[in-house]
Amino acid sequence: MFCYRDNTFYCEEVPLADIARRAGTPCYVYSAGGILSRYRAYDEGLAGLEHMVCYAVKANSSLGVLALLARAGSGFDIVSGGELHRVIQAGGDPARVVFSGVGKTSEEVDYALARGIHSFNCESEAELALIDALAARRGVRAHFSLRVNPDVDAGTHPYISTGLKEHKFGIEIGETEAIYERARGMRNLAAAGVSCHIGSQLLDTGPILEVVDKMLALAERLRSAGHAIRHRDLGGGLGIAYREGDQAPDIGGYIRRIREKLEGKGLAVMVEPGRSIVGAAGVLITRVLYRKRTANKEFIVVDAAMNDLLRPSLYQSHHEIVPLRRTGFGSVVADVVGPICESGDFLARDREIANVAPGDLMAVCTAGAYGFVLSSNYNSRPRPPEILVEGDRWRLIRARETYEDLARGESL
Amino acid sequence: MFCYRDNTFYCEEVPLADIARRAGTPCYVYSAGGILSRYRAYDEGLAGLEHMVCYAVKANSSLGVLALLARAGSGFDIVSGGELHRVIQAGGDPARVVFSGVGKTSEEVDYALARGIHSFNCESEAELALIDALAARRGVRAHFSLRVNPDVDAGTHPYISTGLKEHKFGIEIGETEAIYERARGMRNLAAAGVSCHIGSQLLDTGPILEVVDKMLALAERLRSAGHAIRHRDLGGGLGIAYREGDQAPDIGGYIRRIREKLEGKGLAVMVEPGRSIVGAAGVLITRVLYRKRTANKEFIVVDAAMNDLLRPSLYQSHHEIVPLRRTGFGSVVADVVGPICESGDFLARDREIANVAPGDLMAVCTAGAYGFVLSSNYNSRPRPPEILVEGDRWRLIRARETYEDLARGESL
Repeated sequence: MFCYRDNTFYCEEVPLADIARRAGTPCYVYSAGGILSRYRAYDEGLAGLEHMVCYAVKANSSLGVLALLARAGSGFDIVSGGELHRVIQAGGDPARVVFSGVGKTSEEVDYALARGIHSFNCESEAELALIDALAARRGVRAHFSLRVNPDVDAGTHPYISTGLKEHKFGIEIGETEAIYERARGMRNLAAAGVSCHIGSQLLDTGPILEVVDKMLALAERLRSAGHAIRHRDLGGGLGIAYREGDQAPDIGGYIRRIREKLEGKGLAVMVEPGRSIVGAAGVLITRVLYRKRTANKEFIVVDAAMNDLLRPSLYQSHHEIVPLRRTGFGSVVADVVGPICESGDFLARDREIANVAPGDLMAVCTAGAYGFVLSSNYNSRPRPPEILVEGDRWRLIRARETYEDLARGESL
Repeated sequence: MFCYRDNTFYCEEVPLADIARRAGTPCYVYSAGGILSRYRAYDEGLAGLEHMVCYAVKANSSLGVLALLARAGSGFDIVSGGELHRVIQAGGDPARVVFSGVGKTSEEVDYALARGIHSFNCESEAELALIDALAARRGVRAHFSLRVNPDVDAGTHPYISTGLKEHKFGIEIGETEAIYERARGMRNLAAAGVSCHIGSQLLDTGPILEVVDKMLALAERLRSAGHAIRHRDLGGGLGIAYREGDQAPDIGGYIRRIREKLEGKGLAVMVEPGRSIVGAAGVLITRVLYRKRTANKEFIVVDAAMNDLLRPSLYQSHHEIVPLRRTGFGSVVADVVGPICESGDFLARDREIANVAPGDLMAVCTAGAYGFVLSSNYNSRPRPPEILVEGDRWRLIRARETYEDLARGESL
């Protein structure tokens, strides 16, 4: 996917410096092979069992990435009307789309009903009532799962942990059955599954496997009560290795353990991986602008900033940063910072890093997920382009914004 | 600017609910009168003294806001080529533009030289060399100030504090004179001032007044050494009251104290206010989508999210949230959260708030600065529109993005 050959950093068969020279910096580069191999680890791991791998669009919603996954047969987990629009633009099949999220608007629900999506993961009784009313107006029947909050600690960053009682997500497991019961009275709804989500970037699969047992028992009780529960939607995303030496859970091993629990239960399984498919398959390329030394510190000022990659500032995330060309100049301990005018604009702090010079190129690694999607125009900076590499070829899947783009839709 | 009349929340002479009904939610609304009165507090406070109020474009760079200030005679503090482009689009005068920032690229410096800006606030010797080389190529002379890091604690959020030794900004005060000396050898540069910046959202003006003394002494020493120091650029932005009951520094009083220190010194003064001009003059209007209760918590799910206003998630900032229509239904203690699929998506936590119902409208207050400029398309959410109110009239200064806008520049 990404590796050094003769001290030159490659994405598949393409030296990343070639891309940077043509596309400019900063720029995001994704490996199509890396994305597909992870998608297939899920899809092939579940072969033989009725299943749907629903790629979580929020992790990286570029049309080029979605089209790649749609062609491979992926379903999609969406959280907004905008994401549904993107899936359709990219050639995805609405019948393989699941709509999650805590704040669906009536416009979004109606749009999803019009396009005939697979099902809704519902967050509250008020939402069920809304979907029922809109489905009645269209004369259709909407399939739903309730998203259960299993009250399990995912052991991840507080901002991306979702399955505790204090979170806005899901319905308490003790209340679920009563709500399925009351939903029988809503004539344009059909219970189809049970769903849950405990968080993102899970490095320990223990909590999620514990949840599977809770959810299977719930599905069993619902079926006994006469609900046509057909699928188990298993939210909560596997983590990836951001730090050199991190142990990320193996997709194949995780899927085998899920299989063991589900086989023979007569339930289809849906998984919603996002980060574990695209995260390690992307990098952000940046150029060194200045070296700067103060009494206390060494700074490497680069042309990528928090508007391009927000994760270090927002989540205090670690991303490895490596030179595109390895030299014999050793390393330094420095902060890698961008041009934005606040101290919160950093990509790494007090990090041992290659002893680069102005003009040198570096890759900020594992930036394929929650990278471009969180980018902004802060400090009136145009958003960077995105590039997809397939073997020895690469192409622009999103052009760099121009100064004119920044003010689109504005008037004096 | 913003106030209740008969329990209805107004911006100047316009009920905000009227705007929300026409423009939809979420939407940003700014008060032209509020912006201008604060600009004038700086400008008139410095009347009689040679001065330039350079509005810090990064706080709110909407063309409508910039045009308003340009017409009032404001100068502009920019930190990127994109901001310069905006200032020019809005009718601002490049000769009243100061270029700050730690990571100016050669393209940006060249663009600024081509447009004949007033001066550069420089961050390092390498940057001086770059500006000198590019100015030589164009056959012009560039005016500069060195940005001095005064090593003063501004007592603000670590992300927006900028004047400590551990920060990427500025040049240590002890090294400044030697650099001005060496810059004499650069034939296309002319030293014109001294500048500093200690942080944003300063609630105590003590630190910045302390810095003024340090900087005056430095300017004096530089003049004695024969440098043509003509202006003092006083960066570091006054804070505003985000919480009910907060005491924000009074602009008039602050300016009077600056005047006392500068009068008769033969130095022009430049100030670079951003937040203190636009912050309190803007609100984000949002609609309640759902009420949701779990065993531990009450949630108010609204249609604005962290992609619209990042400050609560990024800086743990407090914004007052008030209903557009005051009713007699009392209050609740709740989290106000958006539709985005992460627990980091909140506008308020454990806050006593009006007992609103789905469909009700609320205003997230003091959102005029670092609001829209930090917005993103996270979760494929179109960015909200911006509206400018002048007396009893209002107009759209930026249209709401559409689903088509989200994928502009993309290809499969």
